[in-house]
Amino acid sequence: MEFTLGQVAAILQGIVEGDETQKVSRLDKIQEGKQGGISFLANEKYTPFIYETDATAVIVSTSFVPTKTLKTNLIRVEDAYTGFTKLLEAYSMLMKSSLVGVEEPCFFDASSSIGDQAFRGAFSYIGKNCVIGDSVKIHSHVHIGDRVKVGNNVIIHAGAKICADTIIGNNCEIHPGAVIGSDGFGFAPQGDGSYKAIPQIGNVILEDNVSVGANSTIDCATMGSTIIKKGAKIDNLVQIAHNVIIGENTVVASQTGISGSTTIGKNCVIAGKVGIVGHITIADNTTIGANTGISKSIKKSGSTLFGYIAMDMKDFLKSYSIFKKLGSIEDRIRELEKKQ
Amino acid sequence: MEFTLGQVAAILQGIVEGDETQKVSRLDKIQEGKQGGISFLANEKYTPFIYETDATAVIVSTSFVPTKTLKTNLIRVEDAYTGFTKLLEAYSMLMKSSLVGVEEPCFFDASSSIGDQAFRGAFSYIGKNCVIGDSVKIHSHVHIGDRVKVGNNVIIHAGAKICADTIIGNNCEIHPGAVIGSDGFGFAPQGDGSYKAIPQIGNVILEDNVSVGANSTIDCATMGSTIIKKGAKIDNLVQIAHNVIIGENTVVASQTGISGSTTIGKNCVIAGKVGIVGHITIADNTTIGANTGISKSIKKSGSTLFGYIAMDMKDFLKSYSIFKKLGSIEDRIRELEKKQ
Amino acid sequence: MEFTLGQVAAILQGIVEGDETQKVSRLDKIQEGKQGGISFLANEKYTPFIYETDATAVIVSTSFVPTKTLKTNLIRVEDAYTGFTKLLEAYSMLMKSSLVGVEEPCFFDASSSIGDQAFRGAFSYIGKNCVIGDSVKIHSHVHIGDRVKVGNNVIIHAGAKICADTIIGNNCEIHPGAVIGSDGFGFAPQGDGSYKAIPQIGNVILEDNVSVGANSTIDCATMGSTIIKKGAKIDNLVQIAHNVIIGENTVVASQTGISGSTTIGKNCVIAGKVGIVGHITIADNTTIGANTGISKSIKKSGSTLFGYIAMDMKDFLKSYSIFKKLGSIEDRIRELEKKQ
Repeated sequence: MEFTLGQVAAILQGIVEGDETQKVSRLDKIQEGKQGGISFLANEKYTPFIYETDATAVIVSTSFVPTKTLKTNLIRVEDAYTGFTKLLEAYSMLMKSSLVGVEEPCFFDASSSIGDQAFRGAFSYIGKNCVIGDSVKIHSHVHIGDRVKVGNNVIIHAGAKICADTIIGNNCEIHPGAVIGSDGFGFAPQGDGSYKAIPQIGNVILEDNVSVGANSTIDCATMGSTIIKKGAKIDNLVQIAHNVIIGENTVVASQTGISGSTTIGKNCVIAGKVGIVGHITIADNTTIGANTGISKSIKKSGSTLFGYIAMDMKDFLKSYSIFKKLGSIEDRIRELEKKQ
Repeated sequence: MEFTLGQVAAILQGIVEGDETQKVSRLDKIQEGKQGGISFLANEKYTPFIYETDATAVIVSTSFVPTKTLKTNLIRVEDAYTGFTKLLEAYSMLMKSSLVGVEEPCFFDASSSIGDQAFRGAFSYIGKNCVIGDSVKIHSHVHIGDRVKVGNNVIIHAGAKICADTIIGNNCEIHPGAVIGSDGFGFAPQGDGSYKAIPQIGNVILEDNVSVGANSTIDCATMGSTIIKKGAKIDNLVQIAHNVIIGENTVVASQTGISGSTTIGKNCVIAGKVGIVGHITIADNTTIGANTGISKSIKKSGSTLFGYIAMDMKDFLKSYSIFKKLGSIEDRIRELEKKQ
Repeated sequence: MEFTLGQVAAILQGIVEGDETQKVSRLDKIQEGKQGGISFLANEKYTPFIYETDATAVIVSTSFVPTKTLKTNLIRVEDAYTGFTKLLEAYSMLMKSSLVGVEEPCFFDASSSIGDQAFRGAFSYIGKNCVIGDSVKIHSHVHIGDRVKVGNNVIIHAGAKICADTIIGNNCEIHPGAVIGSDGFGFAPQGDGSYKAIPQIGNVILEDNVSVGANSTIDCATMGSTIIKKGAKIDNLVQIAHNVIIGENTVVASQTGISGSTTIGKNCVIAGKVGIVGHITIADNTTIGANTGISKSIKKSGSTLFGYIAMDMKDFLKSYSIFKKLGSIEDRIRELEKKQ
């Protein structure tokens, strides 16, 4: 889509300095700006680029005073970064909402329903007795199993698999290849050393405003529900086992794994590659550093944990700083032993 | 599906206390039981809920003696937990076996064959010269490459990719998004620093009763076969490299990675996020704790290992308990040095 | 496909000793050779198998002198391993190049173009305004979003998802289930503890000869490009976040995760399960051991790093060797304290 600088200024409630009839169709970094692109200048260290950029226009704050001649047009707004973000959002919103209709072939069981302003991509699959809301965008190769409920304004990207009985709230976004509602890993050991699968008859509930990253997996509950609460954000390749509960506005970074029946509080920040054992509880506002192993419940709200077996982060870093020189520590002991 | 309490009691060889014409269509947790659901009471700590639950019926053991008035119906069986498990299995079996037929469009090369009581979902793909057994359920978006052999009673969930030449035994279950038989990661370094792919011409063999979790990846062998033996259970997001062999009834939890040409014995339990180097052998009955790094062969059957570089689990925990107080250890050495 | 031993010898510029009209259709390990297969003998420790193998032929070096009677045919070449590799490549090339045409149904937007000798599998999806080169093989269930550019001789395996605006060079291979160009994990914290998604409007660029493993995820840049440079090889289940740059001929093994805006040099070797924080730079020729955590930039080219928080590999192993006996270290300190 193409906009004149005048149109962009109107969206941002800003003022054009230059030719407001010129057109932009792309958002560029200022140092990589090219004809037809619009950039922003919010960080002083990028100021030199504004005199060289080939971008058609640059969004600047009202406080910006050029010290050389400019070849680009300016759009002045109160705060350039906020302005650019507003533009990004408007652009992104426009791109998403403009996607409406049905691409054929796709599969839609007659017992299911879907709201207005929806998109269903080619080869998307919607099973029996599903209830899907308004403005839901279901991309190609998405699988939606039987009895799934989906709220409004949900985006399900290409190839995501939503298994039977899953419930998805409003404004959720499921990225490509994510699997929601696969069977939990539950097996009963038999007398002969073999295992028998325990039927997993629960489901997954994603509340409103949840995001699930590409190729992440969220298992259904054995019974009841695995629940990702309102506003929680899950990154790529994350594993969430059966009956886990993730609290409101908790963020879980890539490649983290959370074992079965663990409950995580709200407003936690869990970095990448964290491993959390099953059947424990993590307090609200917990911060967990990358690669940390959590083996027991965290009871105190606001803790910051880190380490192979989690410790208070400062304590771990202290111990690790001594671990690094353990060779010389042993030498000092040897020296003391000699001198006895 | 809906059953009367009389029908449920017949399946469980139990006795109804209450109205055996009432109907249930759902399995509920006792503390979340609602009209139309059936629960069980096996753990004493849940006993208070039986007097409050809205479930239509609760399965109890013959030994249960109510101490207050009950508003729910009872189904008495010898052991409530076993009874409930039996019910779960019957339900699950019924759900699975009732899925028969073909949804269109789907792709099936005329050179391939498939047995009776099969299901092929919309957009499933079956390539050339495949031989697929009876009661195989192939869900939507499944890809089955050329010359794949699949036994009987296999379930391949939505979007799983079974690459060419894979052999799958009976009663296997492949969860959504799993990739079986992708190329091994084999590259020959060239003189100029670049790499050339080594063709990967082997395959993957899954023996009977194998389960592979959602979005897990099992690479084909460079030559010969990557083999997952009878009864092994693989969780979600697990990586199994080329020419790995996993022994009978070995369990591998989520996000574990096993490097090329490693052989793992039978009846091992490998927790989540374990990393195992290539070209080694792990003895039967080995237990490996979460997040453990295995860098060399384990020769002694029945070992329990743990740690960043694996150690006997007790030894690692002892060392880690001292690691945690390394700060004070250094203080004590400093103190000794001062006093000399 | 079936070849006579004479045809194989011609490809390898070798000489048949035995019956050159016999046919082979398979490459076997020498210890598992069966009628119709061809093997090679390059490692002396496998010599005993050549007298027992049921393979129809074995490729041997000119220097090989049998010490017993052989029942298999020989193809003599200058170097058996090189010869076998050549055969593998010829076979693999033949298999790939023979795949041409279109399987129906598939989706191809009329605004897009694709070159000669291409293959498009059933249920593959190609969006708007894509430009796709010659000899590109697009397997079943592949999703290619709008405005994607793909070079020549690219293989995109079943179910891979290439999101909008991605640019792929020549001779790349994308394995099943990989996701290229999903949204980066960027959220702006709001005053009430919730998060708002930052629109991700950049793309991913894969230069020539890049390989991406099964179910790996490469996020698009927030702005600009996430770039995987020429010849880089990415294994399965790897996470590459927004705005990462991976240098030429760098190898990244399975389950490694690289956080946002990190730049990795060329000719690096990064083992499995490595975690790298965001916004840092890794020098060329860096080697990183399995499971290592990298928390800061590596400035010196040619470093070899290892450890929970990366150290020089030798230093880490020294420290870990003492960590293993920390129990006895504490005993020695206690002993010294007693003797004061």
